[in-house]
Amino acid sequence: MYRAPLSEIAFTLKEVAGLGQLQAQPGQEELSDDLIEAILGEAAKFAEEEIAPLNRVGDENPAQLINGSVKTSPGWKDVYTRWREGGWNALTGDPEFGGQGLPNMLHVAVFEMWNAGSMAFTLCPTLTTGAVEAIEKHGSSELKAKYLEKLTSGEWTGTMNLTEPHAGSDLNALRAKAEPVGDGSYKISGQKIFITYGDHDMTDNVIHLVLARLPDAPAGTRGISLFAVPKYFVNDDGSLGEKNDVTVAGVEHKLGIHGSPTCTMSYGDNGGAIGWLIGEENRGLACMFTMMNNARLAVGVQGLGIAERAFQEALAYSLDRKQGRGVGSKTDGMDPIAVHPDIKRTLLSMKSQTQVARAICYACAHALDMAKLAPDAEQKKFWSERAGLLTPIAKALSTDFGVDVASLGIQIHGGMGFIEETGAAQHLRDARIAPIYEGTNGIQSIDLVMRKLPMSGGDQVRSLISEIKEIASSVNADNTGELGDLGSKLDAAVADLETATEWMLAAQADGKVSEALAGATPYLRLAGITLGAGLLAKGALASKSAPEALKKPRYLMARSFAETVLGESAPLKDDVTRAAEAILAFDAAELA
Amino acid sequence: MYRAPLSEIAFTLKEVAGLGQLQAQPGQEELSDDLIEAILGEAAKFAEEEIAPLNRVGDENPAQLINGSVKTSPGWKDVYTRWREGGWNALTGDPEFGGQGLPNMLHVAVFEMWNAGSMAFTLCPTLTTGAVEAIEKHGSSELKAKYLEKLTSGEWTGTMNLTEPHAGSDLNALRAKAEPVGDGSYKISGQKIFITYGDHDMTDNVIHLVLARLPDAPAGTRGISLFAVPKYFVNDDGSLGEKNDVTVAGVEHKLGIHGSPTCTMSYGDNGGAIGWLIGEENRGLACMFTMMNNARLAVGVQGLGIAERAFQEALAYSLDRKQGRGVGSKTDGMDPIAVHPDIKRTLLSMKSQTQVARAICYACAHALDMAKLAPDAEQKKFWSERAGLLTPIAKALSTDFGVDVASLGIQIHGGMGFIEETGAAQHLRDARIAPIYEGTNGIQSIDLVMRKLPMSGGDQVRSLISEIKEIASSVNADNTGELGDLGSKLDAAVADLETATEWMLAAQADGKVSEALAGATPYLRLAGITLGAGLLAKGALASKSAPEALKKPRYLMARSFAETVLGESAPLKDDVTRAAEAILAFDAAELA
Repeated sequence: MYRAPLSEIAFTLKEVAGLGQLQAQPGQEELSDDLIEAILGEAAKFAEEEIAPLNRVGDENPAQLINGSVKTSPGWKDVYTRWREGGWNALTGDPEFGGQGLPNMLHVAVFEMWNAGSMAFTLCPTLTTGAVEAIEKHGSSELKAKYLEKLTSGEWTGTMNLTEPHAGSDLNALRAKAEPVGDGSYKISGQKIFITYGDHDMTDNVIHLVLARLPDAPAGTRGISLFAVPKYFVNDDGSLGEKNDVTVAGVEHKLGIHGSPTCTMSYGDNGGAIGWLIGEENRGLACMFTMMNNARLAVGVQGLGIAERAFQEALAYSLDRKQGRGVGSKTDGMDPIAVHPDIKRTLLSMKSQTQVARAICYACAHALDMAKLAPDAEQKKFWSERAGLLTPIAKALSTDFGVDVASLGIQIHGGMGFIEETGAAQHLRDARIAPIYEGTNGIQSIDLVMRKLPMSGGDQVRSLISEIKEIASSVNADNTGELGDLGSKLDAAVADLETATEWMLAAQADGKVSEALAGATPYLRLAGITLGAGLLAKGALASKSAPEALKKPRYLMARSFAETVLGESAPLKDDVTRAAEAILAFDAAELA
Repeated sequence: MYRAPLSEIAFTLKEVAGLGQLQAQPGQEELSDDLIEAILGEAAKFAEEEIAPLNRVGDENPAQLINGSVKTSPGWKDVYTRWREGGWNALTGDPEFGGQGLPNMLHVAVFEMWNAGSMAFTLCPTLTTGAVEAIEKHGSSELKAKYLEKLTSGEWTGTMNLTEPHAGSDLNALRAKAEPVGDGSYKISGQKIFITYGDHDMTDNVIHLVLARLPDAPAGTRGISLFAVPKYFVNDDGSLGEKNDVTVAGVEHKLGIHGSPTCTMSYGDNGGAIGWLIGEENRGLACMFTMMNNARLAVGVQGLGIAERAFQEALAYSLDRKQGRGVGSKTDGMDPIAVHPDIKRTLLSMKSQTQVARAICYACAHALDMAKLAPDAEQKKFWSERAGLLTPIAKALSTDFGVDVASLGIQIHGGMGFIEETGAAQHLRDARIAPIYEGTNGIQSIDLVMRKLPMSGGDQVRSLISEIKEIASSVNADNTGELGDLGSKLDAAVADLETATEWMLAAQADGKVSEALAGATPYLRLAGITLGAGLLAKGALASKSAPEALKKPRYLMARSFAETVLGESAPLKDDVTRAAEAILAFDAAELA
């Protein structure tokens, strides 16, 4: 069961994440409230009625490798076909190739719904989106002409081939080879693992984006190039030709997302797979980062989608399941478990974590859109840096919250939560991959600390901190008691974030790289919960005059998140600035 | 792969949890260091060589219901047979019935190893232990004569039948019926769910302990009686007779512990299952609590066992897997991931959480033993209350840590962690039941706050707090810098625990039950991490003169747990004393 939280989604887009600012940009006149409402409403219907029912089916009937081809779960192909025929794959694509050119904010909002419906299903278009972006930005006009229209429509899908058995997070070690044929094409050979939807039967063709090295390429990441390698060759008239030398060597048996085939792909086992360069030789990493940054936000949205669904199911169960009696209950017999304070605490925690994930993911999408739409270079730079700053936070915090909320969802269901038929356990199994792929959350923290904090000499992160401070001031000016300790907790957390940030910037300036790395994980959490609390507070303040039924949960979420989670800011700050001493003083082998 | 951490287990028993005090009790002369070492060493061997290899087998080949009987996973019966023939089931049993009469502390230590080997396997004897204890304490001499010897040896196993579909945590609602036959036996009828090892093929007979209501029983929990219902009747000569009217209606399809059959049991479908009363009519709850309290500690030990194994596997993987290069690395090529500060942080966190769980579980077992062995009534009462106080903490904190550590173990393995063949994912799936069964961790928190804190007018919890204060003083007197901020963090945490405790006691004295319930979960965590940090500190101080290889990890664990986790004490205290205002101000339905 899933009902898209349409009013919360629209509210977060508009009042928290800044959709209005997008609508006000030149050229965005068509992006009306009516259009947005219509799109969200139709997406909600499709997610609820068509995608959500796939989720158990895919879990119980995983995608299978049969005679070298992957067969997806029963019913998936039909839903995928209706989904792309509905134009959903083309939402953000370039209008020149059939896309609707809508902003990322809408993309993220509808992908929240698709993921809540079925994360395993949604992974397929998530990867296609990445391929579309890489080709739009870096592809030659020939490549665009050949692939972009069908990838934009979703008639074909895309994949992303980075990982090799010995090279997971470290692309320096990548070994796949590409040899120029002489006619502009390249012979690709090598094995890639963990390839999401590396093969499937939902479309006629799959376009693989593959990282490989040219014969004379420099060592390390400066010697990597990106290639488009189609499953079937595409003739000049657009029809499909021969099959390329690309085979599926296996499909993984995973903890979750069973409906999503995770393939081991072999390129060139029979003479060489043919591929075409995307971008320039040895500059593949830049192209890959185009895909990867958006994919990181997309993974954050997976955490968000699962959290929302797990929360809804836990709430419904707690209102239905009767056990024990509430304090002072006057009912005859047992009460729903939702009356017990500990259950209410858990539900409130699930809902506020979900809303924090939503607010941060949408704010990140807003920054990406502004980086494209802002009228001048200075603003473009500001928003591009903002998107860079928010991306690792959106990815790591939302996926950690996704796992937490799914686990709390099991807990709410008690013994039934451990029984697979209930569905609560699947959410935890599915959610558990999100803190790992597209760069583990540890790597996100390192990216945040080492690459993102130093942007503009630290002024980008300082500007974010100032914005949270302003929200805190508004809370303090406005608080009539209904927001509890929100103002003071937010003040304290921002101060802690500021201290930890300046410590990090100073550590790097002093060349204390190991010290900075040792504190990266608590730093990301500190930044994430402080920003999240700020955005919940912003939402609460924006609801001040809303009807009580809308205002009350937003006030509750903001205050309770501050009172239960934000207090971590002080120990997190201590951890950031203190942990290195212990961590750097031992070798892991000494723990054996 | 599992290697029992023998030196850590022995150290924790002796230097942290108080085994020496047990050995000094009158009648415990035979409990020598040599005997203990021999038992632990043999158990380690059995756990490593025999039980640990069962773990994947059981996961991949779940126990199955075939023609009304449960068939366990391949090889399980053989290992069980060797295990009980080795005398392991009889460790703590009454010598009158073939038991070895050894203390709980040893029981818990060897069960840590069995659970690390395979939690699903170990559940079977865990339940038998509970049945033995209930019959030892409450059974008539006829019942004892008939069942105790074979249950003590493990030739038969026991089960615990509380839950019914409509009555999980709330035993008031229990409906199973018992009608006196007239010959001292009772006809039992009704359905029970979630019955661990409700049926299996590892032994000839299973003795079910079943809660049911007599026809004239008062409503609620004061009308529940406990019965022994054998799968096969036992003739007077000890041979097995006819099959009782007990059937397995189904086996659950669960997230984890696949090797452990979780059965739906039907009693009396064909005229009535015959059972015999344990203890007095309508006093079944008291008997059940005998089983349940020990079972709660046993579940805590499951969290501990899985945490230890997940840690060991993650450490081994991190020392083996190469990705990236350490800061300032002079090696040629990639370094093991264990050199990265974020990985070291994670490993240290896993190890210190595991050690906290071990220390608290062992301390709880020590209190149980002292309650039995202490020479006078006053001390017996003190230790019985101490065991009561520690039981919910041992259960909830250790199982929460078990889930956390297993999840971190997946994270350390990166993408491989999500692949089932690696084994890391199974630990999370298995561990996830432990915070749920034997009373959810929310219920443990309520038990701690509502029943345990008020013991002796609050003086029992105050005495525990004093003991932690003394440890903190020793740390402060002793700290040469190697223990970092441990002393000051421990001081602050004890003060927070004291404040929260007095607030809880006052809330209850003032009849503010809902307020106390709203803060129960953060209170338990506050008490658990403070006690845990105190015990880690005790262990560190006891290692002051130990060789560096032993001392260093204990110092590291104590300091790093304090510097990274104990800082939560202030926000937890605020949460305990503050959260009720928000939580009591809404109905769950308002979150929809």
